[in-house]
Amino acid sequence: MNEMSPQRECDPLGDWQRTHHCSELRATDTEQKTCLMGWVQFRRDHGGLIFIDLRDRHGRTQIVFNPEINAEAHARAHVLRSEYVLAIRGVVRMRPEGMRNANLPTGDIEVEVQEWKLLNSAKTPPFPIEDRVEVTESTRLEYRYLDLRRPQCTRNLIIRHKASQSFRDFLNLEGFLELETPILTRSTPEGARDFLVPSRISPGSFFALPQSPQLFKQLFMVAGMDRYYQVVRCFRDEDLRADRQPEFTQIDLELSFVDQEQVMQLAERMIRHVFKQTLDHALPDPFPRLTHEQAIRDYGVDKPDIRFELLLHDVTDIVRNSNFRLFASSELVKALVLPQGAGLSRNDIDQLTEFVKIYGAQGLAWIKIKADEWQSPIAKFLSEEERAGLVQALSLKEGDIVFFQAGVPDMVNAALGNLRLELAQRFKLIDEAVFQPVWITDFPLLEHDPEAKRWVARHHPFTSPQEGHDRVMIEEPAKALAKAYDLCLNGYEIGGGSVRIHSAELQEQMFAALGIAPDEARRQFGFLLKALEFGAPPHAGIAFGLDRLIMIMTQSASIRDVIAFPKTQKASCLMTQAPSGVSNVQLRELGLKVREAVK
Amino acid sequence: MNEMSPQRECDPLGDWQRTHHCSELRATDTEQKTCLMGWVQFRRDHGGLIFIDLRDRHGRTQIVFNPEINAEAHARAHVLRSEYVLAIRGVVRMRPEGMRNANLPTGDIEVEVQEWKLLNSAKTPPFPIEDRVEVTESTRLEYRYLDLRRPQCTRNLIIRHKASQSFRDFLNLEGFLELETPILTRSTPEGARDFLVPSRISPGSFFALPQSPQLFKQLFMVAGMDRYYQVVRCFRDEDLRADRQPEFTQIDLELSFVDQEQVMQLAERMIRHVFKQTLDHALPDPFPRLTHEQAIRDYGVDKPDIRFELLLHDVTDIVRNSNFRLFASSELVKALVLPQGAGLSRNDIDQLTEFVKIYGAQGLAWIKIKADEWQSPIAKFLSEEERAGLVQALSLKEGDIVFFQAGVPDMVNAALGNLRLELAQRFKLIDEAVFQPVWITDFPLLEHDPEAKRWVARHHPFTSPQEGHDRVMIEEPAKALAKAYDLCLNGYEIGGGSVRIHSAELQEQMFAALGIAPDEARRQFGFLLKALEFGAPPHAGIAFGLDRLIMIMTQSASIRDVIAFPKTQKASCLMTQAPSGVSNVQLRELGLKVREAVK
Repeated sequence: MNEMSPQRECDPLGDWQRTHHCSELRATDTEQKTCLMGWVQFRRDHGGLIFIDLRDRHGRTQIVFNPEINAEAHARAHVLRSEYVLAIRGVVRMRPEGMRNANLPTGDIEVEVQEWKLLNSAKTPPFPIEDRVEVTESTRLEYRYLDLRRPQCTRNLIIRHKASQSFRDFLNLEGFLELETPILTRSTPEGARDFLVPSRISPGSFFALPQSPQLFKQLFMVAGMDRYYQVVRCFRDEDLRADRQPEFTQIDLELSFVDQEQVMQLAERMIRHVFKQTLDHALPDPFPRLTHEQAIRDYGVDKPDIRFELLLHDVTDIVRNSNFRLFASSELVKALVLPQGAGLSRNDIDQLTEFVKIYGAQGLAWIKIKADEWQSPIAKFLSEEERAGLVQALSLKEGDIVFFQAGVPDMVNAALGNLRLELAQRFKLIDEAVFQPVWITDFPLLEHDPEAKRWVARHHPFTSPQEGHDRVMIEEPAKALAKAYDLCLNGYEIGGGSVRIHSAELQEQMFAALGIAPDEARRQFGFLLKALEFGAPPHAGIAFGLDRLIMIMTQSASIRDVIAFPKTQKASCLMTQAPSGVSNVQLRELGLKVREAVK
Repeated sequence: MNEMSPQRECDPLGDWQRTHHCSELRATDTEQKTCLMGWVQFRRDHGGLIFIDLRDRHGRTQIVFNPEINAEAHARAHVLRSEYVLAIRGVVRMRPEGMRNANLPTGDIEVEVQEWKLLNSAKTPPFPIEDRVEVTESTRLEYRYLDLRRPQCTRNLIIRHKASQSFRDFLNLEGFLELETPILTRSTPEGARDFLVPSRISPGSFFALPQSPQLFKQLFMVAGMDRYYQVVRCFRDEDLRADRQPEFTQIDLELSFVDQEQVMQLAERMIRHVFKQTLDHALPDPFPRLTHEQAIRDYGVDKPDIRFELLLHDVTDIVRNSNFRLFASSELVKALVLPQGAGLSRNDIDQLTEFVKIYGAQGLAWIKIKADEWQSPIAKFLSEEERAGLVQALSLKEGDIVFFQAGVPDMVNAALGNLRLELAQRFKLIDEAVFQPVWITDFPLLEHDPEAKRWVARHHPFTSPQEGHDRVMIEEPAKALAKAYDLCLNGYEIGGGSVRIHSAELQEQMFAALGIAPDEARRQFGFLLKALEFGAPPHAGIAFGLDRLIMIMTQSASIRDVIAFPKTQKASCLMTQAPSGVSNVQLRELGLKVREAVK
């Protein structure tokens, strides 16, 4: 065996057993014997000694090879390079005065090597194992096993682990059962696109991967399980956005014999518990609440970031008879004031104008409130009365800038609501250390799908209307409200749930309201309708997106940073090269052919 | 609203809140107010009163409707039938002397109804909600939501929940991180058949569902995660046997810087913890161990049930020169003694002969040891010396019966090893209250696949040879031993693991020993080989089959009894009718066609 190669490959450890991890030893351990194992973070030769920082998941410990202690061990240590794996046996010593590192938990001590083993060598990694790396994300994903060694990535996975366990601890104490639901299940057309799994035993038939365990968890309630939860993988074959993955993890709950209020209170206590246990962070108690109508009115969006003010204001009535034609003719005119924003440059305003066009706006009207005049392309159209009305309604002060949007409500709210977020980003109006949850309630039950030319369920077709709205949903579908609730955190929806329909009759009425014919409803959801006839209890639930929650908790830029082995935005794994081609034998067994055009 | 139909469908509970579950109230709660919700187990009208047993997941409470307390509430209660769902408000009363039920935790009390609500009605279920039901399994699976209401089924899921949590509690305290691995991953040809998932974004390419997270957990070790676990769904598209499902759940572990002994000790402590926490049952400490060779020698199988004796004995040497030609000419002759079994009838023996034919035996030789003679078709061929040798080797006593099997070792061991289990079943030699674990170690590294005409990995191709056996595996593949270990319980393999290869060079040698060409190895496992070059630590792991373990813990007949929504042996779900046909649009998006022949 040459000196460069690792020790015996089938028995690398022999009788060596690790006694401590690399962030464990302290001054109080001085003169103790220890056996550490880990990776070389870096090596430094100084004054005839060799120093390395040995790293593991927990942290780092300084190791010293001293030729006066063991000449052979010191000599062999010249092979050591970054990311080599070794085991050392040695004695804990205080570092000399002036050499201690107060920033490192083990910074008071070092370990003087008596003997050591090389457990594995390592090629030079394509990027250094440090938090700040100048490397493309695709290289990091290709070498994900090295990327995960970086302390920030390791920390993200540890927080994910802790958060998952704290969810479980809370729910176990609250009398929930963790129950597993199938991954190979039935495709249903309502909802997003399913991933399909061809059946070999029934060629031509397919399983679908679940978008959520919705129907199974309702069936658990029919089965009397009372309180169910699951930390569960879900799947959606959609085109991916920055914060979407084809597979994602949900904390999924369902409870029997409860109404909306009890689910919200329980979920709120749970989220507070998880933040306390995982980050030692106290969330507000109680969480604030907004109705969907209030959220749209004040924030323009249904997942408002309420860490900062800048509310939207409806000024339609003030400018109803304006000489500015656009204002007078629009269904809705709203304004957003950026206090002391009158210093914005023409270029700033041009950029913001481009920004709102993403949301369908034609342009962006604005007024700078100066001491002597209102500086604005539209100021000349505004009467004294309109100006006075705006000053009062918007509490305008010298130095402010006001933005306006006019047109159909959906566009006005989306454009100004997102402009609000953009301004907060640009002008750093947000305290990034704050976690600010808010409940959104009283969602519309239905929304009109212009493509399908029918009403579709806004949450899902199993959501209960509010009291009396079972009639409203038939007579005035646009006005029907749902017993549905979302929990938002810092401008992201992190959870959503609803009271479910527990009556077969009402469920059939809902399918009818959605334009699904009775025989089609029976074909797709017959097992649910049947189950509801055999004594279904009132029930309700909620599901939280774990990936997104952990992204927010760790202040990461992407959910890919908190998933061990994520897919790219093209839904591929750069490390394993999945998806991949398969053999013709495999396809034949499934009774499938790949279409010529795509070969 | 008519009297028969449930209360308002959108707001069934109003301001009613449950205060207790149905197994909670005791004599000490007498005169307290309570609000219970649950299902009607049965109704009984007696002496002008109506009694029902109200049931939930926790248990049952007797409810009394007394017309003198509330005449209207009593009158309405005449609608109640089995499985109706209701909420009652009432007062806890002691039952009259003589009416108490000591077998029920709530048997001392009853609840006198003050007011009640019908939450849902129920059709008559296709089978009664009781432990003993006379109904086919397919009916139970079609109405699984009713089947799960039966106390035994509910209990199985509760034990499953508790066991899962006790695994987690143990592993969390031992410094493991629960880390998630992808479900949409890459197909690999070594191993069982994969379920495939067509990719829409890369038509003609496929993901595979994982048979285990083996490679990902090894990559976690390369990533420095040190101690990983996951309660994880795995998939295998195999023809199903009684105790197999297309998807199943594993408790999956991996540890760095450890050897076989440390994994076995940790796993053993974990299983003891789970039995103690879940069933309050103390398993032996330590677990007994057998080498694979010992297991085959004494029990004929590699997952021995050691709850009873009846060891196999090698008698080849004793009958080497026998006049019984079969014995003299066979590579291996083994005997199995059933003490005091000489009373077996001709019919019994015929049945046992048919039984061993399943395992490739041609027949079954036997000898009854009677006071005056050896009664047997083969006795006449045996010399005095052979008889004496058998008496001594097998400690034969009057009244015993001996069975023999002669031929190639695999058949002899399988036939007698399974005959041993069959005899134990028939003659009730097993104490069903006992849980008897046993470790099996020192497995062969490779086994010859006659179809593929090459050596294949017995465990998987990532298993480390024992010390020095990296050379043996090249020179004498049949003799190479693995650092692999199985944990068996009551004759089932419940877990298996190995020390993994952590050297890229040794992994390449292993692929070569399996006849996988270097470029093919790189194509299939390149990401693993690459990862092993960047500082892979020594690592090892184990995985437990949760379904089978819970089946044994609950003494269930099938794993289907401990899975909430299992598939049939034809891999279909009788409740949801999965798998099912999908639309042509869905297939076209995936670039797939169903072959004409299977349409």
